Amino acid sequence: MAVVLVTGARGFVGRPLVRQLLEQGHEVHAVTSAASEADNAVHWHQCDLLDLAQVAELCRQVQARQLVHLAWCAKPGSYWTSPDNLRWVGATLQLLEQFRFQGGDAAVVAGTCAEYDWRTGFMQEAFTPLQPTTVYGRCKRSCSELAGVFSQLHDMPVAWGRIFQAYGPHEAAGRLLPSVIAALSQGQEAHCSHGQQLRDFIHVDDVASALLHLLAARASGAFNIGNGLPQRLAEAVEYVADRLGRANLLRLGSVAVSPEEPPLLVADVRKLKALGWQGRFDLRDGLDDTLAWWQCQG
Amino acid sequence: MAVVLVTGARGFVGRPLVRQLLEQGHEVHAVTSAASEADNAVHWHQCDLLDLAQVAELCRQVQARQLVHLAWCAKPGSYWTSPDNLRWVGATLQLLEQFRFQGGDAAVVAGTCAEYDWRTGFMQEAFTPLQPTTVYGRCKRSCSELAGVFSQLHDMPVAWGRIFQAYGPHEAAGRLLPSVIAALSQGQEAHCSHGQQLRDFIHVDDVASALLHLLAARASGAFNIGNGLPQRLAEAVEYVADRLGRANLLRLGSVAVSPEEPPLLVADVRKLKALGWQGRFDLRDGLDDTLAWWQCQG
Repeated sequence: MAVVLVTGARGFVGRPLVRQLLEQGHEVHAVTSAASEADNAVHWHQCDLLDLAQVAELCRQVQARQLVHLAWCAKPGSYWTSPDNLRWVGATLQLLEQFRFQGGDAAVVAGTCAEYDWRTGFMQEAFTPLQPTTVYGRCKRSCSELAGVFSQLHDMPVAWGRIFQAYGPHEAAGRLLPSVIAALSQGQEAHCSHGQQLRDFIHVDDVASALLHLLAARASGAFNIGNGLPQRLAEAVEYVADRLGRANLLRLGSVAVSPEEPPLLVADVRKLKALGWQGRFDLRDGLDDTLAWWQCQG
Repeated sequence: MAVVLVTGARGFVGRPLVRQLLEQGHEVHAVTSAASEADNAVHWHQCDLLDLAQVAELCRQVQARQLVHLAWCAKPGSYWTSPDNLRWVGATLQLLEQFRFQGGDAAVVAGTCAEYDWRTGFMQEAFTPLQPTTVYGRCKRSCSELAGVFSQLHDMPVAWGRIFQAYGPHEAAGRLLPSVIAALSQGQEAHCSHGQQLRDFIHVDDVASALLHLLAARASGAFNIGNGLPQRLAEAVEYVADRLGRANLLRLGSVAVSPEEPPLLVADVRKLKALGWQGRFDLRDGLDDTLAWWQCQG
């Protein structure tokens, strides 16, 4: 049992991650920028992570041994270009410093496949150029470099998990699968591109378990978090449409593909798997789980 | 005439830069972390640049149109590995943000040739890999990337000057030329490596004028700041020894060269010169000026 501090605990990845930590018997302290909600199992802390004084006080209070840092500006649509990305770089470094100052021992931070140069297709930690073109990608990439410097300077493990195409419960409504599921569930047409793009889909529960695996292993450096399997977008949406009995409403090819959209974007996950991690979901199981969750949302 | 805010104004580059700004008729506001010294020409402000609240108040008070940001952890010996390098990344971003928020219009920031992969020798902004191995180089390199993101997001020019082998008055005592000058002036032997390494020497007054040139030109992005001329270390120290009449005390070759020390480290300065900048000093004039200054220190 460890005292674990989790930021972004109410986010897409944070929710299953907190649940898994509780199942493993850890004492979970979770950060929220809004007023705390009642929760018997989790210790909620209200804190603006962009405010150094509040971060210092948070870390002093919690005295965590382990840190999972998921928070970042993540507002759908705007996060690719938001100036807040710059603030989160400094905030991440401040959090690591204060966490360590109060006895912190190992951390894992959420990175993104957007740190890579997407033209290369198959992303390998030790080889693929880190030449992102977006504000989000450039800031996350710089932050991963600086987190590496921090880890080296203080001899504290900091793992950086570059997350690929995550899907599952609580995925933001505007993204591909939720919007297809919503349209079809309401008996409306779902308009998609041709769907031939190959992506590395990973269920969000597996993202969470991979991050916690890195933390428990006291891993350092960058790790791709994906399944390593190239699967067509069309395969995912066709399966969903079939399960909803609405294959007739799926309009593959009705939306043009941007010339910048890479045909293949897949993680080399050998480095992660070498640490003994295995995902629980294949794509169909993961989509069944996701559909079951959406059905409960009514 | 512009209102210009200068950080690191008491440093090696800051001193001549402030003097040049005053000569050009600007209103100069300079930051110091210690108590202000009396100075009729410069407006001194006491501020800890690592403290966001103090930075916000500073920028609110000064309402500068232009910013020259030179401050960084620069303690000789320790700055290559200091954890403070990480803090200065966040501090630089905060300063840029607060400066702009209060009406700031253009900025120039001091970078370093240590951002490059030194194995490549001839450093070109658009081509040479940015793969530094030191803490200092990695943090400056990340900061240059993030300053570029800031500049792009806010459509405000931020020039990043990568400074090469600067020398001149007020250079830190432990560095090559000051230590050779000090030893020879005291009639002691000066121990050096073989001195065949080729370096890009630039007088600190020329560094200052280059930075101000970038600022006035509203330049954006990275610019090498050097003379572009490969000159042997031995050439510099032999000239100094001759002028001091102590050539007999110079011991070239008595110190081993580290295998990691690059044989050639020279800037491509075409990008800077294309903006119309020219240096004032060749190596001999610059060394004469430096020696004259040391003699006045008695």
